[in-house]
Amino acid sequence: MTIPLSQSTDPQAKAALGRLNQLKQQLNLTPSASSKQTVNDMNKERQAAEFNIQALATFWAGGEKAYTMRQNAYNLIKNDPELVVQPPRNFLELERTEFREFTMGQVFRLAKIASELGPEQKDYAYEIGHAIGIYSESFSMRFGVHILLFKNVINMLSNDEQRNYWLPLVEEMRIIGCFAMTELGHSSALRGLETTATYDIDADEFVIDSPTVTSSKFWIGMAGQSATHTVVIAQTIINGKNKGLNWFVVQLRDVKTGELMPNVIAGDIGSKVGHQGLDNGWIQFRKTRIPRSQLLAKWVSLDRDGTFHHAPNPVMMYATLIPERLSLVNGMTLMTTQALTIASRYGVVRRQGAKNQQIMDYQSHYVKLVPAITFMYMIQASFETLDAQFAVLTGGGGIDDEMVYLNHMGDLHAISACLKGLVGWYCSDILETCRRSCGGHAYSAYNAIGHIMNDWGVFTTGGGDNVVLLQQTTKILRFRLEQQLEQDIYPDLKFKSSTHYILNAKSYLEKPSWSLDPEHLNDCLKDFSLITDALYSILVKRLYSIHQAIKEGATENDLLLESVKAGELHCAAFLFEDNAQRFGRVKPHTLDSSVVNIMHRLTGLWGLHVLHTYSDQGYKEGFFTPAHVTGIEKLYLKACKDLRYQIIGLTDAWAYPDFVLKAPIGKYDGDIYEAYFDTILQAPNSTGVPAYHDKYIKPLTERQAK
Amino acid sequence: MTIPLSQSTDPQAKAALGRLNQLKQQLNLTPSASSKQTVNDMNKERQAAEFNIQALATFWAGGEKAYTMRQNAYNLIKNDPELVVQPPRNFLELERTEFREFTMGQVFRLAKIASELGPEQKDYAYEIGHAIGIYSESFSMRFGVHILLFKNVINMLSNDEQRNYWLPLVEEMRIIGCFAMTELGHSSALRGLETTATYDIDADEFVIDSPTVTSSKFWIGMAGQSATHTVVIAQTIINGKNKGLNWFVVQLRDVKTGELMPNVIAGDIGSKVGHQGLDNGWIQFRKTRIPRSQLLAKWVSLDRDGTFHHAPNPVMMYATLIPERLSLVNGMTLMTTQALTIASRYGVVRRQGAKNQQIMDYQSHYVKLVPAITFMYMIQASFETLDAQFAVLTGGGGIDDEMVYLNHMGDLHAISACLKGLVGWYCSDILETCRRSCGGHAYSAYNAIGHIMNDWGVFTTGGGDNVVLLQQTTKILRFRLEQQLEQDIYPDLKFKSSTHYILNAKSYLEKPSWSLDPEHLNDCLKDFSLITDALYSILVKRLYSIHQAIKEGATENDLLLESVKAGELHCAAFLFEDNAQRFGRVKPHTLDSSVVNIMHRLTGLWGLHVLHTYSDQGYKEGFFTPAHVTGIEKLYLKACKDLRYQIIGLTDAWAYPDFVLKAPIGKYDGDIYEAYFDTILQAPNSTGVPAYHDKYIKPLTERQAK
Repeated sequence: MTIPLSQSTDPQAKAALGRLNQLKQQLNLTPSASSKQTVNDMNKERQAAEFNIQALATFWAGGEKAYTMRQNAYNLIKNDPELVVQPPRNFLELERTEFREFTMGQVFRLAKIASELGPEQKDYAYEIGHAIGIYSESFSMRFGVHILLFKNVINMLSNDEQRNYWLPLVEEMRIIGCFAMTELGHSSALRGLETTATYDIDADEFVIDSPTVTSSKFWIGMAGQSATHTVVIAQTIINGKNKGLNWFVVQLRDVKTGELMPNVIAGDIGSKVGHQGLDNGWIQFRKTRIPRSQLLAKWVSLDRDGTFHHAPNPVMMYATLIPERLSLVNGMTLMTTQALTIASRYGVVRRQGAKNQQIMDYQSHYVKLVPAITFMYMIQASFETLDAQFAVLTGGGGIDDEMVYLNHMGDLHAISACLKGLVGWYCSDILETCRRSCGGHAYSAYNAIGHIMNDWGVFTTGGGDNVVLLQQTTKILRFRLEQQLEQDIYPDLKFKSSTHYILNAKSYLEKPSWSLDPEHLNDCLKDFSLITDALYSILVKRLYSIHQAIKEGATENDLLLESVKAGELHCAAFLFEDNAQRFGRVKPHTLDSSVVNIMHRLTGLWGLHVLHTYSDQGYKEGFFTPAHVTGIEKLYLKACKDLRYQIIGLTDAWAYPDFVLKAPIGKYDGDIYEAYFDTILQAPNSTGVPAYHDKYIKPLTERQAK
Repeated sequence: MTIPLSQSTDPQAKAALGRLNQLKQQLNLTPSASSKQTVNDMNKERQAAEFNIQALATFWAGGEKAYTMRQNAYNLIKNDPELVVQPPRNFLELERTEFREFTMGQVFRLAKIASELGPEQKDYAYEIGHAIGIYSESFSMRFGVHILLFKNVINMLSNDEQRNYWLPLVEEMRIIGCFAMTELGHSSALRGLETTATYDIDADEFVIDSPTVTSSKFWIGMAGQSATHTVVIAQTIINGKNKGLNWFVVQLRDVKTGELMPNVIAGDIGSKVGHQGLDNGWIQFRKTRIPRSQLLAKWVSLDRDGTFHHAPNPVMMYATLIPERLSLVNGMTLMTTQALTIASRYGVVRRQGAKNQQIMDYQSHYVKLVPAITFMYMIQASFETLDAQFAVLTGGGGIDDEMVYLNHMGDLHAISACLKGLVGWYCSDILETCRRSCGGHAYSAYNAIGHIMNDWGVFTTGGGDNVVLLQQTTKILRFRLEQQLEQDIYPDLKFKSSTHYILNAKSYLEKPSWSLDPEHLNDCLKDFSLITDALYSILVKRLYSIHQAIKEGATENDLLLESVKAGELHCAAFLFEDNAQRFGRVKPHTLDSSVVNIMHRLTGLWGLHVLHTYSDQGYKEGFFTPAHVTGIEKLYLKACKDLRYQIIGLTDAWAYPDFVLKAPIGKYDGDIYEAYFDTILQAPNSTGVPAYHDKYIKPLTERQAK
């Protein structure tokens, strides 16, 4: 992170270098006993990895080709001042107005690069966009609103004609799109949305309208300053009757002047906690007219005479929320792994305490970081399964039967909803862990963790409130459990559903307590099915208890927190079993054996983590004895300790360059203190007598004694 | 929060009003079914309070006089543009440089007001400072560094002569002080500090020096731009021998010019996650010379001939950390109650879900908010006890015997350390709860919660890392337990220590499990001693288990997380018992009976919360059966539900005016939507075509199809 100012030709940069050097000549930069150790400490930790770090990095990236392409993309963007803020300016000090502009500049620059690379290098251009998004979450969201949210709605909910018309415009960015769902007064409960689309049969047009203050579309990314078009979800009124929610394409701004279209009013919602590079906005439609053809018509249609053809099920309109949630999970993983890299590196070079030991050696440190890192690997590996399942849903018209489509959509909804909920909450805890692990230095804006946490805030409710999502999963689980127990029905699905264990619900319910002797808990790590069985037993018992309580008159609301917990456990157990299947097999693997080996260990650790975290669920059901609980805890703590020296290898494999991480205390080589101090010394307005001295300080201090 | 721009004479404000009105004429601001309900909803909630809100507010403030003075102070500062940011500018958009200046301006203005009020209204001036600090945490810290940290060190560690010399300068702000403890490489482990103070016997001076890069004093509030003096803690070298850490006064800047003194180098550490109004800085001493008289000499002294007189115990040097921690706890409460007020008010006016119900009605909402609000009341009420105990330590030379002083200091260290740790962590969770409770709207910078959370970050490690603090408490508890069990020794203290239950350790250890029948858990709420007994039984068992594990060869580090948990439980149990004593009594109270009644209910709820939260500690020890655990949960959920309609009354009693809260969604009257929209519309650079349109958008959208 020592910044090569000397190579810069920018006069501002040269001046900053001059100031920096002048200051540094006056300072004592002699290394201390502890700062001398840092680089050695880091090297030792790296050497302690019991696996091939490069092979794990390749696995993480999704193969050698993907790994190389990502690293090439990082190298390409690193010194490009339109993509990456160059010193002496610091990305972490961009303020709202300049950040909005810089981020749109990145979009523009990427489009230019993509156009230069041409269609044959489309994948590489995509990867460059991905790399910029890893560097800046604001960019990721801003570009993602257009290329994922906007495009997915058109792609998944248009008829062929619409798709042929709109998709080229979207892909070539001749229009810039946004996604107008949330309103000022309505978010997770979509049925309450107030925006209307009324069919005017005489004009053959829809009239889009915002009837109240709370109906204003709100939070809409790119609507603040840059989108030319939007997809908008609205209550569809035909012949005075509400036909439910549908999606429409509406133009917001003139593509050449950027001025708002007539009868559209929109603005930027101003300052947010994070994502200051994204122009979230509000929109009011004042009886905006669009042709009938701009009703997206894959599942619904409207004839010229006003006859409306309904979708087989209104939830069809929310199908795009599934890929949205999966991409949110992916985004959350990218942010969390960056924070974990910084915290891990700082943790091994920082020394503190009576024995001047590495802070990573404290139990409070590694027992938090090891499972967090493990969680990242579990999610990433399970994306193989999730992507395959999603492909079944969207793949080549494979599902024509609407009921089959709905079953699959319900299943993917169940897993994507709880995944977004669990990842949202656990990663939020992990970021807090990372902040705490870096002590006071996490509080400097220049060590990036604060920036990540501020960007994070949106994931609490964005893409669906986590409470609501987890409860929805549990409702599906309860429905399947009831069908199984009462009618022996389980849907026919084209993949192994995360709910498959419901098929064996009866046998799980019959187990009164865990048959495994607490003395032999160690066997869990040799035979993962012992863990799977315990988790599914607890889960089915919990679902059944909720089911019984409802039958006995409890309200859904009185069981809300229990339902949420069950949804979390379902997701955590899915991640375990899915990876136990993948890495627990004895048969030869296509992966590097050291990768399989570490992934096997991580899977075991994850299993113990879930048993430990949800042991109260087991204890409540009488499934665990106190000896089980203390035994699990002991084994879990030991397993964390056994992985303590793998932390640097595991986080190195995420392969973030220093310029992406931006945090001097998270430097790859461990040489943190001088780099950190350099960053501080370069901060604008940080030395000399402040401008307000004569106004506010001098009049106080120069007074005479009373 | 509707901003009275019309009354303003500021031309910038008038122009903003013009823009706002013009925009609003084009918008549809018709209330919707749900926005019409908000004011009624709020009124109903307020009327549902089963206690006298005003009486509770008086109790919270510390009596009628204190309540009135605080409200007068709020009224005084509200329209003062040097103390409170006036519209159209928004406090929540102040950026680093202007925020630093504005905050020093507040300090200056306060000094002026205090001087105008004169010595007879000193209390009122203090209260005005307090009110400004509630409005701005940056001010609170900036002024607090001088008036608490700097002054406390001088007050508690000076001899009489030093005190007489320095205190008038501090109180009249003819010098501005800071507190130089933390270094770049050293924080919680003070013994590792590197700054040296070497006695030069020939010159009769100390030479203060920063020998390495990591010895640079770092994070020092007010050192960045404004402090003229500092107290600095340094390794004291006399005749080549290290005599340990001592405190010295060193001048940093010329009081008239603001220029650095010779051989002192200091600067601002730049951008932080929060507290942008505070000029945290770094300092390097380059062999800075000070007279021998600037060694603070209450407990130590140095003769002219180089003879050094040690303190009876080196921990004497850390005595000021106790009031620092107590004031941090107070500050954390002030911030958290603000966030809770906003979240509670929004929770009762926001409607969502299938039945369009108040979101506060969801179990996931009130079960998080009720205990959080209760926690605030428990802390505030227990300050009566803590203040009295602290007065024993510092009061009028009451303790001359050094051993007695050390015992009392140890005891206050034990409770203040775990309190800072528990409050730090639980309030951090509460803020996250508040953020989540406000859904997406917490993500707008204009709803204040993000600002509070960013200011919060410093409390994670500032004033001592919470892990370290909680472990220190547990070490003291273990020491007392061992002394009690093995030698029947317990120190003679002038107050009822939080550790008093150790006296009955043997009887607690003898109870194998909770004798209370799970069917009769309800009795807990009639007889609080049932809860106290359970908590102390679990606590003593846990401490004993840790003690035994260590005896059997476990390391301290392998038990670190268990120790931390025990420290938390000690603190939570102290808060319960202390308030059970205060509000569980049948005898007549000096307080309003409705206040006693609600405080009694809150105390019971807190007891259940602690039993529930730490139930794993109970079942690990076999003290709780599964039936206890489920029974406690059920009772706890019910008790939260019973208090659901008290939330608005309880948060109203904190008596924060809207201008202090700054959040339109937390408005007192519940009329949130238009006020929120107004705030958004007034944000700078939020409407019209953005400056970068021609540069980055037009070149994309005007391209022809390929």
